[in-house]
Amino acid sequence: MNGGAAAWRTIHSGCCHRGWDRSIPPVAHVAPGETIELHCRDAADGHYTRRSTAADIARMDPARVNIVTGPVFVDGAEPGDALKVTIREFKPSGFGWSAIIPGFGLLADRFPDPHLHLWEYDRTARTPAVFNDRARVPLKPFAGTIGVAPAEPGLHDIIPPLRTGGNMDIRDLAAGTELCLPVEVAGALFSVGDTHAAQGDGEVCGTAIESAMDIVVTLDLIKGAAPAFPRFSTPGPVTRHLDGAGYEVTTGIGPDLMAAARDAVSGMIDHLARWRGLAPEDAYMLCSVCGDLRVSEVVDAPNWVVSFYFPRIVFD
Amino acid sequence: MNGGAAAWRTIHSGCCHRGWDRSIPPVAHVAPGETIELHCRDAADGHYTRRSTAADIARMDPARVNIVTGPVFVDGAEPGDALKVTIREFKPSGFGWSAIIPGFGLLADRFPDPHLHLWEYDRTARTPAVFNDRARVPLKPFAGTIGVAPAEPGLHDIIPPLRTGGNMDIRDLAAGTELCLPVEVAGALFSVGDTHAAQGDGEVCGTAIESAMDIVVTLDLIKGAAPAFPRFSTPGPVTRHLDGAGYEVTTGIGPDLMAAARDAVSGMIDHLARWRGLAPEDAYMLCSVCGDLRVSEVVDAPNWVVSFYFPRIVFD
Repeated sequence: MNGGAAAWRTIHSGCCHRGWDRSIPPVAHVAPGETIELHCRDAADGHYTRRSTAADIARMDPARVNIVTGPVFVDGAEPGDALKVTIREFKPSGFGWSAIIPGFGLLADRFPDPHLHLWEYDRTARTPAVFNDRARVPLKPFAGTIGVAPAEPGLHDIIPPLRTGGNMDIRDLAAGTELCLPVEVAGALFSVGDTHAAQGDGEVCGTAIESAMDIVVTLDLIKGAAPAFPRFSTPGPVTRHLDGAGYEVTTGIGPDLMAAARDAVSGMIDHLARWRGLAPEDAYMLCSVCGDLRVSEVVDAPNWVVSFYFPRIVFD
Repeated sequence: MNGGAAAWRTIHSGCCHRGWDRSIPPVAHVAPGETIELHCRDAADGHYTRRSTAADIARMDPARVNIVTGPVFVDGAEPGDALKVTIREFKPSGFGWSAIIPGFGLLADRFPDPHLHLWEYDRTARTPAVFNDRARVPLKPFAGTIGVAPAEPGLHDIIPPLRTGGNMDIRDLAAGTELCLPVEVAGALFSVGDTHAAQGDGEVCGTAIESAMDIVVTLDLIKGAAPAFPRFSTPGPVTRHLDGAGYEVTTGIGPDLMAAARDAVSGMIDHLARWRGLAPEDAYMLCSVCGDLRVSEVVDAPNWVVSFYFPRIVFD
């Protein structure tokens, strides 16, 4: 069955797996050029509900994190090919969560305690999601985890992204983007999940607006064109939903990019507290769902500048 | 003399210094709230002319690099204050240069040989600068080096940025931006230079469109409000001159942010060669003047994702 308008095949969320492993049997075979719809669970596999509290964070089973839908075998895909994934559409669920998880996130030392924020948002993603009576976050749904199976046998943890993609958490893998992934095994074995309603560059607290979604993609092959790392093209601007009111920007400066990133984000949390009276935990989660971590300069040795951009439209 | 429209004081480019040192005598004293115009030499202090070639790179005296105009003493500024710099206007010269300098830049190992590109550009910065018959770079003038004197006595090299600012090379320190710098010495001792007609986040080859310019700023004080690192507010969007046609994006994935940054930029140079037939040296310089280095995720241990965004509008 080829993907005409709305006539595509559906891969249900029960067709899922935990971790990357080339030996996991495919849940479907598709021809190059075929469009399919995949139903994705959220990154906590439904653990959080509208009644959840921060106490539920400790009860989350780590083995259930970032379950993905797939794998899909693409006919004719061979090691050395590029799998071209055209990301066509997201159908968000309208419910999501963000969390500060002890031991996880860029500022794990500063935030040792669990915090949970639940979101109800517009399923069309056209109106910003309300965080509280002061802050609203523009939405752009995307797939946090999207990739193909690595060649190396055995089970690979799903959390770290790999050369073959996976948990890249790149907030511009949104509708309209074309993503090229390096195929390492026969059939590519494509999987997707960990869908997010919004996230900034960095995903600094470790979570986005985590939310179950259906996603429509077209899978195609470019023979012999495997990129060294995932590469993509966006159909147009990537920040116009966020940038209209400009940005507040903090910096970190020093010889270590990671330390500079921490200083920049920590500085923004302090700034949001002074400027808008936000609790540090709220500021940290907001930074994660809509602020951007950028490398301003990486050549003026021995000190680099990492900047954190927070969009003022959130408070408009 | 206070800064009414076009009635401000001018600090000429002969009022300059090399390196940061709290003992350098001020070239002017201003009252808080005063607007001044500073004439800035380019980062090579006029070494490159319209007749220069790559052979002139080796002849550049390193002691002349990044000369800055100042220092300006702000009356009443004391350690612990914030110096608020409102960046009002740039008056670019219309001539600029970009270079690959052996031993300098993110990919110094890949590019051992000197290369020089000379630019003639629109002094209003409204039309993109022509790179070659295929590529044109949208302009946004800004100050690469802007800062105040550090408290620690002695001469500090001008190349590495410091907590007090300096050679930060943040491409959004453009007209309309308000920058807060931490004052560490009496009078703040403000200086500016290293003006750029365009640069991407990262300044990956080590140079931007380096160009002499005049800059108009208002210097003001916020008592007792020194930020830990420089902080700024942009008056509006920061990439709309670049983002209209979307981006080509390459990634680097791994446990070291610097290595991931190198992989992302190296991947873009390879991609621009295949996609647009650019020579690697041209691609590297173009990446430096208009591509953006972003941290896509920094939480999915042990692997981070650094992405390099190249604006397709350059080839439109």
